[in-house]
Amino acid sequence: MAKKNAFYAQSGGVTSVINATACGLIETARRYPDLINNVYAGHNGIIGALTEDLIDTSAEDSATIAALKHTPGGAFGSCRYKLKDLESNRAEYERLIEVFQAHDIGYFFYNGGGDSQDTAYKVSQISEKMGYPITCIGIPKTIDNDLPFTDACPGFGSVAKYVAISTKEAALDIQSMCKSSTKVFILEVMGRHAGWIAAAGGLAAEKAGDPPHLILFPETAFDETKFLAKVDEAVKQHGYCVIVASEGTSHADGSLISASTTVVDAFGHQQLGGIAPVLTKLIKDNLGYKYHYAVSDYLQRAARHISSKVDVDQAYAVGKAAVEFAVNGKNAVMPVIQRDSQAPYQWSIGEACLSQVANQEKMMPADFITEDGFGITQAARDYLEPLIQGEDYPPYKDGMPVYARLKMVPVAKKLNTDFKV
Amino acid sequence: MAKKNAFYAQSGGVTSVINATACGLIETARRYPDLINNVYAGHNGIIGALTEDLIDTSAEDSATIAALKHTPGGAFGSCRYKLKDLESNRAEYERLIEVFQAHDIGYFFYNGGGDSQDTAYKVSQISEKMGYPITCIGIPKTIDNDLPFTDACPGFGSVAKYVAISTKEAALDIQSMCKSSTKVFILEVMGRHAGWIAAAGGLAAEKAGDPPHLILFPETAFDETKFLAKVDEAVKQHGYCVIVASEGTSHADGSLISASTTVVDAFGHQQLGGIAPVLTKLIKDNLGYKYHYAVSDYLQRAARHISSKVDVDQAYAVGKAAVEFAVNGKNAVMPVIQRDSQAPYQWSIGEACLSQVANQEKMMPADFITEDGFGITQAARDYLEPLIQGEDYPPYKDGMPVYARLKMVPVAKKLNTDFKV
Repeated sequence: MAKKNAFYAQSGGVTSVINATACGLIETARRYPDLINNVYAGHNGIIGALTEDLIDTSAEDSATIAALKHTPGGAFGSCRYKLKDLESNRAEYERLIEVFQAHDIGYFFYNGGGDSQDTAYKVSQISEKMGYPITCIGIPKTIDNDLPFTDACPGFGSVAKYVAISTKEAALDIQSMCKSSTKVFILEVMGRHAGWIAAAGGLAAEKAGDPPHLILFPETAFDETKFLAKVDEAVKQHGYCVIVASEGTSHADGSLISASTTVVDAFGHQQLGGIAPVLTKLIKDNLGYKYHYAVSDYLQRAARHISSKVDVDQAYAVGKAAVEFAVNGKNAVMPVIQRDSQAPYQWSIGEACLSQVANQEKMMPADFITEDGFGITQAARDYLEPLIQGEDYPPYKDGMPVYARLKMVPVAKKLNTDFKV
Repeated sequence: MAKKNAFYAQSGGVTSVINATACGLIETARRYPDLINNVYAGHNGIIGALTEDLIDTSAEDSATIAALKHTPGGAFGSCRYKLKDLESNRAEYERLIEVFQAHDIGYFFYNGGGDSQDTAYKVSQISEKMGYPITCIGIPKTIDNDLPFTDACPGFGSVAKYVAISTKEAALDIQSMCKSSTKVFILEVMGRHAGWIAAAGGLAAEKAGDPPHLILFPETAFDETKFLAKVDEAVKQHGYCVIVASEGTSHADGSLISASTTVVDAFGHQQLGGIAPVLTKLIKDNLGYKYHYAVSDYLQRAARHISSKVDVDQAYAVGKAAVEFAVNGKNAVMPVIQRDSQAPYQWSIGEACLSQVANQEKMMPADFITEDGFGITQAARDYLEPLIQGEDYPPYKDGMPVYARLKMVPVAKKLNTDFKV
């Protein structure tokens, strides 16, 4: 096998541990100097490849690369940019191969969710047809936890931990205040189509009756009457009510509770947000209870200060495995997390074919939601609990976490052609 | 000095460290068994005293009391209930003395902000006039950091740390995404009249140009034109813009940016919230940038998982000092934090008279805000940095923090009279 450069890019919404994957990948690549020359990172995901905007990771010292393991966000820049079908925009794929050829890139590592795995798969197809063989490995990442074949998606466990802890802490706050002040608290969390993140809020409860008293899932059609009755019941029984609401919760006809559904991103997804104000207004108007709400938004997926150790370890492991797959001659595959044992929780790395992974969404099993539609079952708890185990605190200086600052040295361009994205 | 029981209550919005104060107070009281019999906690603040709803803290073992030090919220329940003036509702004060007399209470410890210190002061006055001498000690607590005479208010340092870290983490997220997606991020934080909390967001910046690019303070009149120009400049210069916005930010005429100003709490304060959606709409309509926003709400003041060690230590120390003041014959005073040295940061406990503390609000010094009104100065940084030092992580089990669960044993009632609050 000839020595080649590797391309690595981060795609889609970032997480608190995607840089741990970058760390695992770069550190492992450096252990194969006979096979892998430099790792070039795409600046802003695949856009970096299309525009020949590459970052030379070999310019970063090993301490900086190691610090990526505890740094949130996407260090090399990510993107919401979906490559079109081969048929409708073959030029994009040809451009990728052109850039890879110019920079002697023999390995293509693409770190993202479903859309990104689709891109990785397409690159593997075109390279074959164009006579420029390149090893394509997809690397899983998404807080949405909706990739198939993998037991969990790196990024999800840390959001789950953040949401569970935040729910528990805010619940203690409102419990203190409910006698003479706020009686209802809503935590709005991410989750377009699947309620994985909202479900994690359920881990805040240690025993029956503990908050959260209601969880709203995209999987369960919103029933206003049942919802208000349940809120009222919680306030009457406990003095207060804590709700974890998924941004994607919808009416029976499929329309979102949230009003702000007008912005559409490059993947064609609607930008959600704003279910909490709608619900609190409903509660105020019908039940008269004083309320507060929090919208955790980017905080939930950036909160590296409280990431799950299991999640960090798995994020690192898929980056490491991606390189090991590549140098062992595997192609068009994605490392996945396998749950080998439930108690004690044990996991290992497996693999899935990109052709099967692409564009599939794994929904939450129906038996994860309680019959009344407002809670999680023991099955859900059994699945979720291992994913939030352990704390992996970043180092601190002067009271603040110390996150990696990269030099971001660009790779000298070799092509004289511009490419418009 | 005859042996007496002590009354302790938590008042106003709770914090992630008010229970550390309770811990300091109860642990210290237990060291003076010759002077202090039991500590009775008011259930839901002063309401517990008025309704003879007392909790016997002697029923809690020492491990549970110790665990209060790392438990957010107000363990005994807090309240938003302001005692009226002596003249307009003397009956309330007489009722307090009646309950204290019935339970042989000789020490009154009241843990809260400005309104609560006013209550403590009034109780000290009436007790004198009614011939029922009771030692009254106020204990500072407020995330608003607006109590006079104390260098900082227990509760503030932890919110400051949470907001600074959250700003830094979310900024790394948006920086990753800005090339092809979100360009503006707003973090909405608490702060009715003073921008202390918003200012803490400025600690996220390590050097010039670092996010946050704008901070909106209640102290600075909102200028739409200047604001939009500054946002646009940040996006053009850095590719993205991070804003920390205080909920209390107002127009030049004093009206709030936030629209939701209709709810009024028992202290007569308007319930704020909702500045972020107003600002993002402004940005979207005028500059067209894609945005995200988070509303940290109760999460910021409940986030015990990332409390400042300095804040926890100071919260514990004021609880301890309150008891030591009382057993040493002091009355109608409040322990305060004194900054003895800036570098290295050193502090000690001092005292202030309740007569002077009551109903004063300490505003942020004008020289803490940069000339353009959108940032913090070195003076602000010098003041704030020591307050967020150190991490005081709670213990974890199965991935979740272990917070105290109290038995909450009620003290048997001795009065046959109901009191309506």
